[in-house]
Amino acid sequence: MDDTATRHTEKMKRIKAARDKMMASKTGEKGLIMVHTGPGKGKSSSGFGMVLRCIAHGMPCAVVQFIKGGRDTGERELLRTRFAQECRFFVSGEGFTWETQDRERDIAAAQNGWRIAREQILDPQIRFVLLDEINIALRYDYLDVAEVVDFLLNEKPPMTHVCLTGRNAKPELVEAADLVTEMSLIKHPFRAGIKAQPGVEF
Amino acid sequence: MDDTATRHTEKMKRIKAARDKMMASKTGEKGLIMVHTGPGKGKSSSGFGMVLRCIAHGMPCAVVQFIKGGRDTGERELLRTRFAQECRFFVSGEGFTWETQDRERDIAAAQNGWRIAREQILDPQIRFVLLDEINIALRYDYLDVAEVVDFLLNEKPPMTHVCLTGRNAKPELVEAADLVTEMSLIKHPFRAGIKAQPGVEF
Repeated sequence: MDDTATRHTEKMKRIKAARDKMMASKTGEKGLIMVHTGPGKGKSSSGFGMVLRCIAHGMPCAVVQFIKGGRDTGERELLRTRFAQECRFFVSGEGFTWETQDRERDIAAAQNGWRIAREQILDPQIRFVLLDEINIALRYDYLDVAEVVDFLLNEKPPMTHVCLTGRNAKPELVEAADLVTEMSLIKHPFRAGIKAQPGVEF
Repeated sequence: MDDTATRHTEKMKRIKAARDKMMASKTGEKGLIMVHTGPGKGKSSSGFGMVLRCIAHGMPCAVVQFIKGGRDTGERELLRTRFAQECRFFVSGEGFTWETQDRERDIAAAQNGWRIAREQILDPQIRFVLLDEINIALRYDYLDVAEVVDFLLNEKPPMTHVCLTGRNAKPELVEAADLVTEMSLIKHPFRAGIKAQPGVEF
């Protein structure tokens, strides 16, 4: 090996040693409260990516969609047709709030979604629950954030993972969460006149 | 309806009108160059979430994993066993750079991955290509960013979507992309001593 290669190997050995030591200190296991928020793309799709991972590991899942119900999405179709055994799928919302234009109906749908969500989270068979777009329902106070946070912290089974998605996550939820990712928009094709396309957006 | 409900309905009608007008101006379709970067979680999992969406829409996919090859991941297992017809899966990397500790081997693996990636992108049957963790290979100059950007801009079929993931995306790639999302880490359970867990991290 030449000098560069030797230096690379030595450097990587040191990084590996430090990393192995760091990872050895991470021994805890815990059902996580995860939040995907921010204006960028990837909040729901990474939630569905985790559903895929859980199915692969034999961990039964449930998805509750709070807002996007009005539109047929690829992930819903695929999970319902191909993974009905591994993943339960519930739709509570009838579309975005500007589509329904009926606040009372939106509130009733959100409350119904939260009732289903609680049941699924409490079900000992279920290991991962995705609450897709619940942050929208929380933001408009269709759901009480204190009630949701209290339930997640005090009634969620300790090993069950819950992922909550949507823009504008409330500070109380961020505070309660174990893992929070903010998706930021650096560049978006809408600005160049490109419409929402299958596979990418839905 | 009481006053609050009426005001809500009126407000939502105005939002819907503005939104419909905005969406009507977005009529273009284009195969997108998408980049998921940043230190937060969700870069790969949202890429796999899009693979799920594409499969649902009957859009054949290909995945090339550049770095994570050393570890068995749930998504790889699931795609290989359940979606072998809909999604081709290639692994070029043998693990993180600090695991292999061999720069020449890493470079050869990255170059091989890029050769496969080009073939898949050029294949007219394939509609979506996920280049998972390619940004790591670009960052260490295992691949030439100018070559990658030139290929994506000038040789990629116009309707094929390509998603490139990994931290520290090079500025040249961000500049060339149609859609860039930065995943920021607001809070991570590693800090609380929690290890990487199945379903969530792999």
